[in-house]
Amino acid sequence: MKFEQEFLKNQVFEDSLLTVNWYPGKGYLPSSAFRCMEYLENGDVVIRIGAPKAHEVKIIAQFGNPDANGYCPWQDDPVYGTKDEAGVFTCVLPFGRTHTGSRSLKVYIDGTLVIWPYLPTAFGSNRIQNFIEIPDHDMAFSYIYNVPHGAVISQKYHSSVTGKEERCMIYTHPGYQKNSESYPVLYLLHGGSDNETSWFTRNRIQDILDNLLAKGECVPFIVVSMNDMYTFGEDSAERSWNHVDGSTEAVLINDLIPFIEDNYRAKTDKWNRGIGGLSLGALQACDCGFRHPELFGNMVFLTSILYHDQYRNALGRPWEEALRHPEQIAENYRFIFCSATPQEDHFDYFKNDEKLMKEAGLEELMDGYVREVHDGRFTRWCSWRIGFRDMARLIFRD
Amino acid sequence: MKFEQEFLKNQVFEDSLLTVNWYPGKGYLPSSAFRCMEYLENGDVVIRIGAPKAHEVKIIAQFGNPDANGYCPWQDDPVYGTKDEAGVFTCVLPFGRTHTGSRSLKVYIDGTLVIWPYLPTAFGSNRIQNFIEIPDHDMAFSYIYNVPHGAVISQKYHSSVTGKEERCMIYTHPGYQKNSESYPVLYLLHGGSDNETSWFTRNRIQDILDNLLAKGECVPFIVVSMNDMYTFGEDSAERSWNHVDGSTEAVLINDLIPFIEDNYRAKTDKWNRGIGGLSLGALQACDCGFRHPELFGNMVFLTSILYHDQYRNALGRPWEEALRHPEQIAENYRFIFCSATPQEDHFDYFKNDEKLMKEAGLEELMDGYVREVHDGRFTRWCSWRIGFRDMARLIFRD
Repeated sequence: MKFEQEFLKNQVFEDSLLTVNWYPGKGYLPSSAFRCMEYLENGDVVIRIGAPKAHEVKIIAQFGNPDANGYCPWQDDPVYGTKDEAGVFTCVLPFGRTHTGSRSLKVYIDGTLVIWPYLPTAFGSNRIQNFIEIPDHDMAFSYIYNVPHGAVISQKYHSSVTGKEERCMIYTHPGYQKNSESYPVLYLLHGGSDNETSWFTRNRIQDILDNLLAKGECVPFIVVSMNDMYTFGEDSAERSWNHVDGSTEAVLINDLIPFIEDNYRAKTDKWNRGIGGLSLGALQACDCGFRHPELFGNMVFLTSILYHDQYRNALGRPWEEALRHPEQIAENYRFIFCSATPQEDHFDYFKNDEKLMKEAGLEELMDGYVREVHDGRFTRWCSWRIGFRDMARLIFRD
Repeated sequence: MKFEQEFLKNQVFEDSLLTVNWYPGKGYLPSSAFRCMEYLENGDVVIRIGAPKAHEVKIIAQFGNPDANGYCPWQDDPVYGTKDEAGVFTCVLPFGRTHTGSRSLKVYIDGTLVIWPYLPTAFGSNRIQNFIEIPDHDMAFSYIYNVPHGAVISQKYHSSVTGKEERCMIYTHPGYQKNSESYPVLYLLHGGSDNETSWFTRNRIQDILDNLLAKGECVPFIVVSMNDMYTFGEDSAERSWNHVDGSTEAVLINDLIPFIEDNYRAKTDKWNRGIGGLSLGALQACDCGFRHPELFGNMVFLTSILYHDQYRNALGRPWEEALRHPEQIAENYRFIFCSATPQEDHFDYFKNDEKLMKEAGLEELMDGYVREVHDGRFTRWCSWRIGFRDMARLIFRD
């Protein structure tokens, strides 16, 4: 595969999120000036790191290349840099049709995990980390174009549950900031070790929605991405995943939904309210959504939702009881969207979910029950973008 | 000075911007778990960096401690870490009443400038960098409290000047997202090597305004922070400061103001429109504001504005001509706010500006001409926050 220059120069990142000077060698490595990230026409990505005193630089990309069985490991093999006489290490990340989209990068200098200041950064793995976007024509629906742009809002609110000011991210579509209409709201939960920014930085939902709306392919709605991993106290044990379910649901229902409906022009009936998530967030959304049919008429699950043996749940998991009464599910919810890619290590759960829901007869009972499996070449972030796009085309249609 | 625990635990950062696990030693340095940042009661800040194979770790804080003459250098002396047997370097940043507020940190491991993943990060020095907030009771007006919170918006718009989608940041006060009124708008320019996020990440204007509005100490207005350093092309020379004035003004007037007034509920007369900036942005705001009395009835300058011998300007500097007709200035502008701290290396320019404006008689001619000099102990970010707060109390009052 060869990428044309025009495509490689597409505006994948917001320009202002990148370094102003892409040649940071100049200045702090006086003898050389080097470009820190470069896309080659074959799709390889060259990354250069100046570390004259270091012996070894390696980069590990997250969400690896699938093996012969289609299994996609959590990370690729390390790519070691070749050092030149100026002290610049050059790492070439090999391209494959299976490597595209948003990839987290772990950068190690002499064994120490650091962030390289001249690559893009976003929150992930419970911290700020480097990531890149490996361009892909099939991901072009999520890039930046000259279309009307919605607003991406960082919004603090007080939580009665954590006792602190918490933050959510909100997308409002073009027009919202000026007009006075009310809109449906989709509440989104992120994956494990991500945070409320990840739907925007990695899944690019603002760009996907801007592009869909420009083509008239979805109805306008508000998206609220909350933090599903509230922290209590300061020590390691408390700032952990212990609170992924009970506290998330409590914050969402007691604090966030009332805040949004008091402060934004949100439609407030359940048919205009949805809950969704990806990966761990899909499980949380499933639990919360099935427990609260009075609140949510729409549910969106990217990746498996029902079975997950590693998942601790403080409030219990309501899906088993719910599936015993599929006709109630069909009454309670208008739209249930599930999607995944075979690349995920949880794909067996997804297939099992499919079986359980089929046995319960949801396909026949619900027009708005949608399942899709994405092309097996896509890494998880690609799959989640595709799932989000396809979901957005369908949700909140009268 | 001793800080009480209650104050040190004040919510200085948005929790979700920090690592979930503050003990990252656990996991990648198997034998140890260490807290990466710690405030001591005397105000020292302890930073720990695990780098077992490294020989030297040093941290340089930006905007240093003033010398005997009151001059505040660009950076402090390096603080070298002490290595323990587990491979963790401990650096103690010495506290002083002159060191408080937001401080950029340059972290070097064996001479290579990196970002430490477990400290806060923000854009600065033309890239993402580490920074910390050194707590200070006098900066408490800019911290996070349980008050109604406005929205901080990342907004893309198309620029006819750069030919690309650009980004600005917008603050809308509590109430804006639900109601249907129109409000005044202040356009802000950032300092050299910062970007449109810096007014929010470093100057915390969203928190300052939330807190002022909660006390009824200012009128609600919209703030738009643009990027003053547009980039053209991809090479080093073009991604530089060559475009700091001409292109900024062109983007602001041709693209951004029309976009905001088309898409947000902005009052559109000049008395409800202001332009302001800090440091380099103050110079740009001065030039643009004096050139366009038809657009801006209010101007805000934090740090010197008139003289600056290093400043290249494509469009010429209009202040000299403007000062020849002070009565026109008084007619054209309702509010001109200037502030600075003696800590800055440009403070002599500020004093000279004061003299020139005094000679022109602005003090007598304009009720809305305000100058203030902040307590000499404050570093620049502190001074800019104080200036912003004091300005916000006065601007857009009828």
